[in-house]
Amino acid sequence: MSYRVAVAGASGYVGGELLRLILQHPELELGAVTANTNAGQSLGSLHPHLPAIADRLLVETNEANLAGHDVVFLALPHATSAEVAKTLSDSTLVLDCGADFRLEDPSAWEKFYGTPHAGTWTYGMPELTLAEGGKQRGRLRDQKRVAVPGCNVTALTLALAPGLTAGLFDPTDIVSVMSVGTSGAGRALKSDLLASEVLGSARAYGVGGVHRHTPEMEQNLTKAAGVRASVSFTPVLVPISRGILAVNTVRVADKFDFETLKLVYQDAYSDEPFIQLLSDQLPTTAAVLGSNNVQISLAFDQHTGRVVVVSAIDNLVKGTAGAAIQSMNLALGLAETSGLMFGAVAP
Amino acid sequence: MSYRVAVAGASGYVGGELLRLILQHPELELGAVTANTNAGQSLGSLHPHLPAIADRLLVETNEANLAGHDVVFLALPHATSAEVAKTLSDSTLVLDCGADFRLEDPSAWEKFYGTPHAGTWTYGMPELTLAEGGKQRGRLRDQKRVAVPGCNVTALTLALAPGLTAGLFDPTDIVSVMSVGTSGAGRALKSDLLASEVLGSARAYGVGGVHRHTPEMEQNLTKAAGVRASVSFTPVLVPISRGILAVNTVRVADKFDFETLKLVYQDAYSDEPFIQLLSDQLPTTAAVLGSNNVQISLAFDQHTGRVVVVSAIDNLVKGTAGAAIQSMNLALGLAETSGLMFGAVAP
Amino acid sequence: MSYRVAVAGASGYVGGELLRLILQHPELELGAVTANTNAGQSLGSLHPHLPAIADRLLVETNEANLAGHDVVFLALPHATSAEVAKTLSDSTLVLDCGADFRLEDPSAWEKFYGTPHAGTWTYGMPELTLAEGGKQRGRLRDQKRVAVPGCNVTALTLALAPGLTAGLFDPTDIVSVMSVGTSGAGRALKSDLLASEVLGSARAYGVGGVHRHTPEMEQNLTKAAGVRASVSFTPVLVPISRGILAVNTVRVADKFDFETLKLVYQDAYSDEPFIQLLSDQLPTTAAVLGSNNVQISLAFDQHTGRVVVVSAIDNLVKGTAGAAIQSMNLALGLAETSGLMFGAVAP
Amino acid sequence: MSYRVAVAGASGYVGGELLRLILQHPELELGAVTANTNAGQSLGSLHPHLPAIADRLLVETNEANLAGHDVVFLALPHATSAEVAKTLSDSTLVLDCGADFRLEDPSAWEKFYGTPHAGTWTYGMPELTLAEGGKQRGRLRDQKRVAVPGCNVTALTLALAPGLTAGLFDPTDIVSVMSVGTSGAGRALKSDLLASEVLGSARAYGVGGVHRHTPEMEQNLTKAAGVRASVSFTPVLVPISRGILAVNTVRVADKFDFETLKLVYQDAYSDEPFIQLLSDQLPTTAAVLGSNNVQISLAFDQHTGRVVVVSAIDNLVKGTAGAAIQSMNLALGLAETSGLMFGAVAP
Repeated sequence: MSYRVAVAGASGYVGGELLRLILQHPELELGAVTANTNAGQSLGSLHPHLPAIADRLLVETNEANLAGHDVVFLALPHATSAEVAKTLSDSTLVLDCGADFRLEDPSAWEKFYGTPHAGTWTYGMPELTLAEGGKQRGRLRDQKRVAVPGCNVTALTLALAPGLTAGLFDPTDIVSVMSVGTSGAGRALKSDLLASEVLGSARAYGVGGVHRHTPEMEQNLTKAAGVRASVSFTPVLVPISRGILAVNTVRVADKFDFETLKLVYQDAYSDEPFIQLLSDQLPTTAAVLGSNNVQISLAFDQHTGRVVVVSAIDNLVKGTAGAAIQSMNLALGLAETSGLMFGAVAP
Repeated sequence: MSYRVAVAGASGYVGGELLRLILQHPELELGAVTANTNAGQSLGSLHPHLPAIADRLLVETNEANLAGHDVVFLALPHATSAEVAKTLSDSTLVLDCGADFRLEDPSAWEKFYGTPHAGTWTYGMPELTLAEGGKQRGRLRDQKRVAVPGCNVTALTLALAPGLTAGLFDPTDIVSVMSVGTSGAGRALKSDLLASEVLGSARAYGVGGVHRHTPEMEQNLTKAAGVRASVSFTPVLVPISRGILAVNTVRVADKFDFETLKLVYQDAYSDEPFIQLLSDQLPTTAAVLGSNNVQISLAFDQHTGRVVVVSAIDNLVKGTAGAAIQSMNLALGLAETSGLMFGAVAP
Repeated sequence: MSYRVAVAGASGYVGGELLRLILQHPELELGAVTANTNAGQSLGSLHPHLPAIADRLLVETNEANLAGHDVVFLALPHATSAEVAKTLSDSTLVLDCGADFRLEDPSAWEKFYGTPHAGTWTYGMPELTLAEGGKQRGRLRDQKRVAVPGCNVTALTLALAPGLTAGLFDPTDIVSVMSVGTSGAGRALKSDLLASEVLGSARAYGVGGVHRHTPEMEQNLTKAAGVRASVSFTPVLVPISRGILAVNTVRVADKFDFETLKLVYQDAYSDEPFIQLLSDQLPTTAAVLGSNNVQISLAFDQHTGRVVVVSAIDNLVKGTAGAAIQSMNLALGLAETSGLMFGAVAP
Repeated sequence: MSYRVAVAGASGYVGGELLRLILQHPELELGAVTANTNAGQSLGSLHPHLPAIADRLLVETNEANLAGHDVVFLALPHATSAEVAKTLSDSTLVLDCGADFRLEDPSAWEKFYGTPHAGTWTYGMPELTLAEGGKQRGRLRDQKRVAVPGCNVTALTLALAPGLTAGLFDPTDIVSVMSVGTSGAGRALKSDLLASEVLGSARAYGVGGVHRHTPEMEQNLTKAAGVRASVSFTPVLVPISRGILAVNTVRVADKFDFETLKLVYQDAYSDEPFIQLLSDQLPTTAAVLGSNNVQISLAFDQHTGRVVVVSAIDNLVKGTAGAAIQSMNLALGLAETSGLMFGAVAP
């Protein structure tokens, strides 16, 4: 059986990555590929790395073009997703790679995005451990509307959730600093994304708790911890195209014990197909490039009473498009790993 | 049906890439993975990007460990391949990713490598057009010994062969300058391959006709042209890990016509599954990264009477490991594209 | 004695580099810094690497603001330079870093730039050897209008001129392929200059003899050779911000002898303060980064009858702003090296 | 007046940077340049970016060769510095760029370095604010033995010291994560510093409080705060050759007020010649490359009660060689800025 899928917003980097993964998925058939200003262009002109569909033309993102698909992926600017989503059939599985439906708290949405809250969809992070027991995976089966997590959010959440759920971390003292690649900033023209500005340089941005991924991080970690979590998050742009290397540090709770922590993580993640818990090595973004994998390492700094959980993902795969496919698999009742079990491209 | 394959020299970059591709191939089962100084280590410690086989241990490269496989890939230093090859059964398909069996002319081998010539195996470049008619593909079926081409050689040969076979190029006036990534230099420790030396820098090497790929280039182009070809080749190391961007220029023959040339290339390559002939775009290494694809563009500079054929490949895939799998597919009678039809990882 | 200098077009990369060099020059005092759309902004917002002048404001590029300076550097888009130049006093030394006044042949200008030819100024390449004897240096003294050479042009010209002047090269068979950094493309927003497109990738552009630097290259080499020279030139964009690594190959003339060639280059360049003739090493862009130096190496490939001259420059220093200061020094009668004798920043 | 200076350990990256800065210093004359295994080689072979001294030969690092200089810079592996230092005259100014003489607490030294403590020299960080009043600058005048700070240490210390001295930060809750370039790891051959491993990748190292710079960081911040400070520090290697981008976060003290903090930093740093306090921009490593400058920005995240101080330095200049020259200037009674007032090389 094959599902017919559409990609709305196929001209950007997330759209391109969805196309790459759809082509590799044994149970998917590519239907409409849509865009806004790029409608009419060929995929080959925008994504020359996908020769199999180079001659396909982008059509306009509208109700008619997106109708008649089993699955629609939205890879659109925020606020636009919500508009397009309204036009889609209830029986279609829709996965939004944007932010519109991630947050549950309308005031958090409005504070960070400045537009009215569009609603909340089922959150597409299967591996998220929940304070109430179980993982988010159980909630995705048969869903028709899925909000795909933010890339930085995934790097932090998967790194800290098990320790929080186990009560081993203090949820009020979390500091996360991430080295992130440029593709996460999208394909729009901005002067500080010019290669001349990025090559040979590192720079922080969204400094001081203002990055839009912060409330989503706290929403997740609060679900994992069962009590309110807060996060100090700072991203640093570095000269890599893909990848997030997250250094997540958290003060340990009173009852902390490092051996227990390691068991907790093994218990949470040893059966997860996309999570590698490293013991003798440290994560690198190169080791996950192009794959849906997450690398995680644990270290305890007794001297400061902090655990340092380092995690690495490919922002366009496990950070977005791969996570979307993984949630789609679950929502459709396919094998969760279908079309996603390949190694990274390294070096 | 599944073929059991071994990789000899699995600790290096070519070895790692063979493993990645073998894992994605539907008709292969991984047998022994061998190394020399790294024997005893886990694949996870050397290739952390391949979690599916992280716990597999490298065994020593010797006759016993390599016996009992349908296919053996050799990813060994030159001269070592020839030694190991002697120990392998005649009924085993052996593909050498090194240089030992590529050259037909013993004196060329000795001049460039300084050791006795080990022999010549069937050359694993299916798309190579031959002056005598047909392509090299026809010679690979049922072979048991295949010499996988050099990476730079592939980038040049596929770029110029059709025009030479058609008699539209002067085979005695070819200049090729390539921007090449660092993985082509392998994993050995050399001070000029330190990141501090490579980042932000470009440097030529092997300047003045001394690069070892030169005689192999000329061997191929001579077969394509039917008359003796000579090549001025200069590689330039640039700060990318993978990829070859080749600028191949050639003086046109007297009877040259650019429209004819374009037809010749379309005729030669439009049905090739791994070759993209670009008309409105120019090749980039990013657009082939991680894939077995080749991008080629043609331009005619009337003013100097030279054609400039730009080509791009991933040196570890179409340049080595992917080419090895492709030739293996042909030699085994599988579909030539089996396990190799995936897009590149971009951006 | 101190000269008061203005920079017109100070918001771009060439403008920024002129400012950096002016601040280091012992005999210059910075006057007006002008821009077009960025007028009113502080230099600190555009060039945060120059804290000494962070609070200076950009003023509009107009006659009044540029009046009253001893020296005016133009770092403007082509055609704009010519417009602004008209408004400047004859007694002011004007150096144009753009293309407007480089070409002597109006038809070449019109073919490559598509606008009317503005005229020709004294060419600012002191080290250029001339077929008629001497070097270009001798023509710069006391000049009031200087055309600063194109960056790629400098990398090629200095590499080949002495051999052409000596009659050792065939001026009709020159092939040059350069690995170039992104800053040479300027600060304007273009999608193919986004970091995500450039990182990890190499791509050729201006392929097939259409790059605008071609006629300037041929003009120079014709002056060096004394007979008409033609050049096949292809630039390749690589992930470095600064630098040009040029692989320049040329067929040798009948009377060629490699030992003679080396003597010719030593004779031409051993006293040049900014040219390093390497014998045991090869040029790298890292080794000239931030400096006004040129590295040049010679190799002879007897087998193809071609000499390969590799050269490296920093496109923003010896390729533009440094060359401008050097010519200014000569035109003002200062020491040619004043303000320019510093090493490169490596690694 | 000119001082004669020697560089012991001139073959590495710090040694090379010292040479570059010495050549630009108006009051220095280069004497002996020494090395261990590289003795006998020319500087040109090791530092081709410094053509002015390309023909100088490295001599052995020994007492005789280092005698007779006014100033000796040590750029040696730790433990070696202490050995060499014993052989130098008391009247010679000696500046150690290594770690041997930085720590005051012998047990901290032994814990992190595993060798006997060699002693403590005057700490070469002029801008360090002290809880007891004043800055470290006052202690450097006329000193003969100076310990140059560690590069990461400088990036953290200058970022947080004024707020700690003012009592506005909690010295027990400091988390610092730095993106660091590869040159900080030196020129020794290590497989994880190969360009193929570094390009396109980010990876943390020294995770969990084990990095050797940690005790030096805490020593400095304790002096700034007047009470014991502790630091959770994690470095991340990113694909840049030079530069440190430090994200330093600290919980605010009870009496904290952000406006007060900004005034405290202005008071501490507005007259510092090498520190730029940014208000509308954020630091980048590109903006300090090649310069002795430090960029610092302040942000307050009220939501988590943490201040985020971002700082950027060039690890080889302000992080090592530039700091050494600056301390030398002070120790010799020269202008502190002599030979160091130049802008960065950007883009």
